[in-house]
Amino acid sequence: MPPPEEINSGPPSASVGTKSPGLTEAATSPPISTVLIIIAMQTEALPLVNKFQLSEDTDGLLFPNGVPWVRYHGKYKDLSINLVWPGKDLLLGVDSVGTVSASLVTYASIQALKPDLVINAGTAGGFKVKGASIGDVYLASDVAFHDRRIPIPVFDQYGIGARRTFCTPNLLKEVDLKLGRLSTGDSLDMSPHDEGAISANDAVIKDMEGAAVAYVAELLSVPSIFVKAVTDIIDGEKPTAEEFLQNLVAVTANLDQAVTQVIYFINGRSLDDL
Amino acid sequence: MPPPEEINSGPPSASVGTKSPGLTEAATSPPISTVLIIIAMQTEALPLVNKFQLSEDTDGLLFPNGVPWVRYHGKYKDLSINLVWPGKDLLLGVDSVGTVSASLVTYASIQALKPDLVINAGTAGGFKVKGASIGDVYLASDVAFHDRRIPIPVFDQYGIGARRTFCTPNLLKEVDLKLGRLSTGDSLDMSPHDEGAISANDAVIKDMEGAAVAYVAELLSVPSIFVKAVTDIIDGEKPTAEEFLQNLVAVTANLDQAVTQVIYFINGRSLDDL
Repeated sequence: MPPPEEINSGPPSASVGTKSPGLTEAATSPPISTVLIIIAMQTEALPLVNKFQLSEDTDGLLFPNGVPWVRYHGKYKDLSINLVWPGKDLLLGVDSVGTVSASLVTYASIQALKPDLVINAGTAGGFKVKGASIGDVYLASDVAFHDRRIPIPVFDQYGIGARRTFCTPNLLKEVDLKLGRLSTGDSLDMSPHDEGAISANDAVIKDMEGAAVAYVAELLSVPSIFVKAVTDIIDGEKPTAEEFLQNLVAVTANLDQAVTQVIYFINGRSLDDL
Repeated sequence: MPPPEEINSGPPSASVGTKSPGLTEAATSPPISTVLIIIAMQTEALPLVNKFQLSEDTDGLLFPNGVPWVRYHGKYKDLSINLVWPGKDLLLGVDSVGTVSASLVTYASIQALKPDLVINAGTAGGFKVKGASIGDVYLASDVAFHDRRIPIPVFDQYGIGARRTFCTPNLLKEVDLKLGRLSTGDSLDMSPHDEGAISANDAVIKDMEGAAVAYVAELLSVPSIFVKAVTDIIDGEKPTAEEFLQNLVAVTANLDQAVTQVIYFINGRSLDDL
């Protein structure tokens, strides 16, 4: 899907071509101008905020009064970067994780910022039987839900909500990421019912936001990609919550390095070049 | 929470008082001017659309391009009624049920319409062990999620997301509704893990949207109430999907009758009078 004309009216960046060693043809569509990065946890977001010296919005104009959603923004070369974090729950003070918050901030941010591309970055559980190890960073080829069981014909497929992500063969070649299917649900743990659905989704990683972000981005016709770093091995020995908390900070470093490489790669390129 | 001044600037309805046999004091806050009814399924929505002769928006201005969300609007006496249905999934053609769609339409509709009150109406499963029968219509006293298990301190409470609904003692006295706790999840069926969580939520009814609508309404400081009619007995003999489909149309008549009574009661009253 081409990005809206009005936000791509600037001249193509002079760096197109010179920065694209993987490209064999000249870009025909305008370079990506604005990216929206959706990250559910503050711990995952802050290293990127620092890395790209993003500024926190303080005028409160982007989102409605009262919501805890936080937008950081800045530039990397020709690229406008927006990082949106759903913030701390107003009552409980913990990160507003999960599909409902992710859907809302994705919707409100796309409406306000008209990005060319959505990047959902975060941590995930991984299945060692499918090849995942702690610290691996995946690009999701497909997303689906594993905890929306509606056993009525067609509704069952709606519940699963399987979709392909935006196809980025050149990005995958240039940036050191593994490729695999992502399954999303609102629980950190995994019930036997979840396990069956994740297996049916053929997923190598499991998160709490991805398929919801993909649903909203598709609804609003914005391409989306998913960068997920493995904090815990679901089919391993350790309890998920313990392993997740133990590895969160260290694995976040891998995640942020990967997202940084993705941003470097995107700069000056068009959607067709990804 | 008092409604915003700007949408309640009209004179108080002359009918306040004369229509309020349950009231013992004069109303001090302005009457409710605008209600937003969120209904997930077309089958549940259309009888109310017909009953109140609501018109479907056709100008496409209220919501972004491309979303399937449908708003019907009209007046009942002094009350502006907006009924929003998330529409049919663009790819699969089934009603966009569940918490993600419900969150999005609640958010977008509150932003666009600034209602004084949100009413989430729909069908639900009921537990006979807690007193529910097919066709019963409940007003939810509390809502919570049963499929967001995050076994980390405080995150666990965020996942459950328990909240009291807007308190409406006079409405409950006047309109023939049962009172009970509602538990929400994205599956029509009930896994053993769900069952444990629903039991911990002390719920008599189970739906697929309520707690998400409550979360969004609270985020945007709009009071919300939940009117749910029982289509299937979860702890009964029949498979849920079969019983749900069998009873959907008949029970929807009860639901729509109850919502109609609620609208009649709300007209001319302030939030404090409910």
